[in-house]
Amino acid sequence: MAGRILGVSALGLLAFAVIPAAAETPDREQVLVAVEAQRDVTVKALQDWIALPTIAAEKRNTPAGAEYMRQLALDAGFQQAKMIPTDGVPAVFATLDAGAKTTVGIYFMYDVKQFEPSEWSSPPLEGRLVDRPGEGLVMIGRGAVNQKGPQMAFLAAIKAIQAIGRKLPVNLVLVAEGEEEVASTHFDQVVAVPEVRDALAKSIGVFIPSAAQSKDGSANITLGAKGAVEFQLVVGGETSDKYPKTDIHSSNHARIENPAWRLVKALDTLVADDGHTPAIDGWFENVRPLTERQKQLIAEIAELNPEDQEKVLLGVGRWIDDEPYITSLERFYSQPTVNIQGLIAGYTGPGGKTVLPGRAEAKLEFRLVPAMTGDEAVSKLKAHLAKRGFDDVQITVSGGYGPNETEEDSILIEAQKKLFEQTGIAYSIRPRNAGSWPGVIFNGPPLNLPASQFGLSRGGGAHAPNEWFLIKSSDPKVNGLDEATMAYVDYLYVIEQETAKGSD
Amino acid sequence: MAGRILGVSALGLLAFAVIPAAAETPDREQVLVAVEAQRDVTVKALQDWIALPTIAAEKRNTPAGAEYMRQLALDAGFQQAKMIPTDGVPAVFATLDAGAKTTVGIYFMYDVKQFEPSEWSSPPLEGRLVDRPGEGLVMIGRGAVNQKGPQMAFLAAIKAIQAIGRKLPVNLVLVAEGEEEVASTHFDQVVAVPEVRDALAKSIGVFIPSAAQSKDGSANITLGAKGAVEFQLVVGGETSDKYPKTDIHSSNHARIENPAWRLVKALDTLVADDGHTPAIDGWFENVRPLTERQKQLIAEIAELNPEDQEKVLLGVGRWIDDEPYITSLERFYSQPTVNIQGLIAGYTGPGGKTVLPGRAEAKLEFRLVPAMTGDEAVSKLKAHLAKRGFDDVQITVSGGYGPNETEEDSILIEAQKKLFEQTGIAYSIRPRNAGSWPGVIFNGPPLNLPASQFGLSRGGGAHAPNEWFLIKSSDPKVNGLDEATMAYVDYLYVIEQETAKGSD
Repeated sequence: MAGRILGVSALGLLAFAVIPAAAETPDREQVLVAVEAQRDVTVKALQDWIALPTIAAEKRNTPAGAEYMRQLALDAGFQQAKMIPTDGVPAVFATLDAGAKTTVGIYFMYDVKQFEPSEWSSPPLEGRLVDRPGEGLVMIGRGAVNQKGPQMAFLAAIKAIQAIGRKLPVNLVLVAEGEEEVASTHFDQVVAVPEVRDALAKSIGVFIPSAAQSKDGSANITLGAKGAVEFQLVVGGETSDKYPKTDIHSSNHARIENPAWRLVKALDTLVADDGHTPAIDGWFENVRPLTERQKQLIAEIAELNPEDQEKVLLGVGRWIDDEPYITSLERFYSQPTVNIQGLIAGYTGPGGKTVLPGRAEAKLEFRLVPAMTGDEAVSKLKAHLAKRGFDDVQITVSGGYGPNETEEDSILIEAQKKLFEQTGIAYSIRPRNAGSWPGVIFNGPPLNLPASQFGLSRGGGAHAPNEWFLIKSSDPKVNGLDEATMAYVDYLYVIEQETAKGSD
Repeated sequence: MAGRILGVSALGLLAFAVIPAAAETPDREQVLVAVEAQRDVTVKALQDWIALPTIAAEKRNTPAGAEYMRQLALDAGFQQAKMIPTDGVPAVFATLDAGAKTTVGIYFMYDVKQFEPSEWSSPPLEGRLVDRPGEGLVMIGRGAVNQKGPQMAFLAAIKAIQAIGRKLPVNLVLVAEGEEEVASTHFDQVVAVPEVRDALAKSIGVFIPSAAQSKDGSANITLGAKGAVEFQLVVGGETSDKYPKTDIHSSNHARIENPAWRLVKALDTLVADDGHTPAIDGWFENVRPLTERQKQLIAEIAELNPEDQEKVLLGVGRWIDDEPYITSLERFYSQPTVNIQGLIAGYTGPGGKTVLPGRAEAKLEFRLVPAMTGDEAVSKLKAHLAKRGFDDVQITVSGGYGPNETEEDSILIEAQKKLFEQTGIAYSIRPRNAGSWPGVIFNGPPLNLPASQFGLSRGGGAHAPNEWFLIKSSDPKVNGLDEATMAYVDYLYVIEQETAKGSD
């Protein structure tokens, strides 16, 4: 779900932004020449990757995408790369030993979200280069920004360093999964493999390449993310013989139960009458309140992001309970949610149709905050419904994970601040990403590593038609592919420097 | 919705059935020869009619179907036939003055239900003749049984009488509507036209040709039907600025209301916690309990239709509240319902998708029993939701009408009994059809006429793929097209005889 944060409006940016100064990267000019020299190859490689969409929900290219990912790692200089089988889609594990003191973990997702070609202005698997007014030359394709573009820029960065005959400043451990878009269903199995776990345990933390640069060139640092658990509730002939096996004539509701009503009754117990406060038994017992530092960061965000603008972006006129903006933002970052993603039952075409549905389904999702866990949330849901007698409501958990949280003084975060300051890039700090990514796999036990997102590239339309990634920016303050690639180069060197400082 | 009663399992049939004896119809042999002589023309005419589907929901052939209907009436000997414009799809009004003492009202629907060709075994508009094992030669096509087949048989009947040089025994007033499948939205406007109203007012009652013969050749008489009102509840950006205008990233539910929750909260108030008893304020105040005669008829039905067989047909293992069969049947015929036909909100594909829906819709329907009315039910719904503050829940009534009820001693019903007895056809009497047809238009004020369904033809699959109508029966006890046509001939003569008896 990493890319999903792009759906959340960009929050937090200082009022100024300057053209990035050079970072303290050795041979930076030479690396930049190498990045530019390999640009056409990188663009073509990104197009080729987009042409092979792995979609776990559709079982599309699930082994093929893993093998492709493995080759991409080898091509980028990883000395070994192997598939890690799981009960679902295989992952890829790769290592690049640069003989460095510091090891950095890298998390990739090689899968993409479903797409409907008829909704796109250019073919979703073509990776066509088009001009996007106000941005520059962009590539359009499924996965362009979520997450193949940023990941390809990262691979281009390490290739460029090696291309000029240098060793990387850090060793790398890469884990790439193919089920991110289905809530990383089997990712815990990957990290549980001793070889993978031991390699990651040596790292100073794990980050995912991302496209987090705002339109004005500013950057965001996030200190964690909410967890997410997706599940479906189903009632119908398949769950109880009280309901018909198929849609039948609606006159029968006078004598036969309707599974849609039963679903409504079950759903109704999950949130309070206000329509948003979770009402699952014991839901809030492990929810930590915001710290003073987190509230301070939120207040800064509120100041930098005009409320009116936020409302326009989101297409709403009011916040929950007509709360003031600052309260709504504190909610946004601090509150765990029980959300209905979708409802489907019986007849769904225009107007009506006289049927009694044979099946009703609600698609829901939890967003979890520290110190809730995914297992805790699922257990509480099951106990809540069981206690109320909803034994005919089938619960299917399609995936999920708990929240993650990384300290501001971790090397991963300190290095981001340092890089932005060195290069004069304005930035703000978010206490938490209200969206989710499976950082808890690294951040939680047994690894307990810092986990972060980093990337100075830019794009949009994740999970939507016409997903795009910026290749050549029309604004010097905003990074295109080459500059985004250089940002990864610089970041790895700053991490190395920060680690060395720490070990002094 | 007349055809929808076919979705309800055939209930009530005596344990025996004999080959029909001849009715007391003058020149019956000659009429039969005429029916057989015109059979190929009739079959072709039915195929041609099926080839022109009028579907109000899709605005398909809405003026064309009315004009076609008008021509069919003229071809069948109606002296005048005209279109009656409405705020929706036009109706057709036609009269055939035979100089008789008695006038009979005929109700036609010329529209059909939507269809999806890929689900059919033969093209839905072709009217292909195929062998159906256990039934005989049938015509497959949308509208075959609901309601073009039975209506074409009726037209063939009056043509045959005229073909041998006789006048009809009764005068006819025909009203044909093109919005039956969208709950007869504007049909009240048709009957309100003075010319139409006055013509109908002279009739002894109105019937719709239907295909009500059971597989064993027995017939059913129904003494009315429940009313039906279809409506949709919509919540979303279009109803309040509390909700987003489109689906947005689900993380925002921490600060923005979800219309699907609001819909659940509104729906939850409409039925009791048992998931079926209507809980709309004042809902039951005009509901009449079953009479002793109605209970007696239901007990007979229960005896003739084994419970196990009913459950298998409906695909369920239990009745509401695990009630005994007889209680469930009393419910079926007597209880008004609030049914969810369908739910649709946000993401509806496989698995989950992290969205907060911009819109949530529930499709519902009321089934009403005497002495409820359609207007009453809608007013109570609106008052109920308004009282609870659901002013952001938009109610769209897509159509509907109240219940109808016709006395057992009315001429329309007495003539059916007489005909079945004369011809040795076993029959049972249902106190009410749990399905619906807009008979209340005739049965309620200001006309207050008997309204009934009649027809000894047979078919199935109304509203489903592969809808069929029996053309040539493989069982002598069951009527094919010719025999069904003759049953209408006989019915008109019996009505004339019964009326004459009444006026003696």
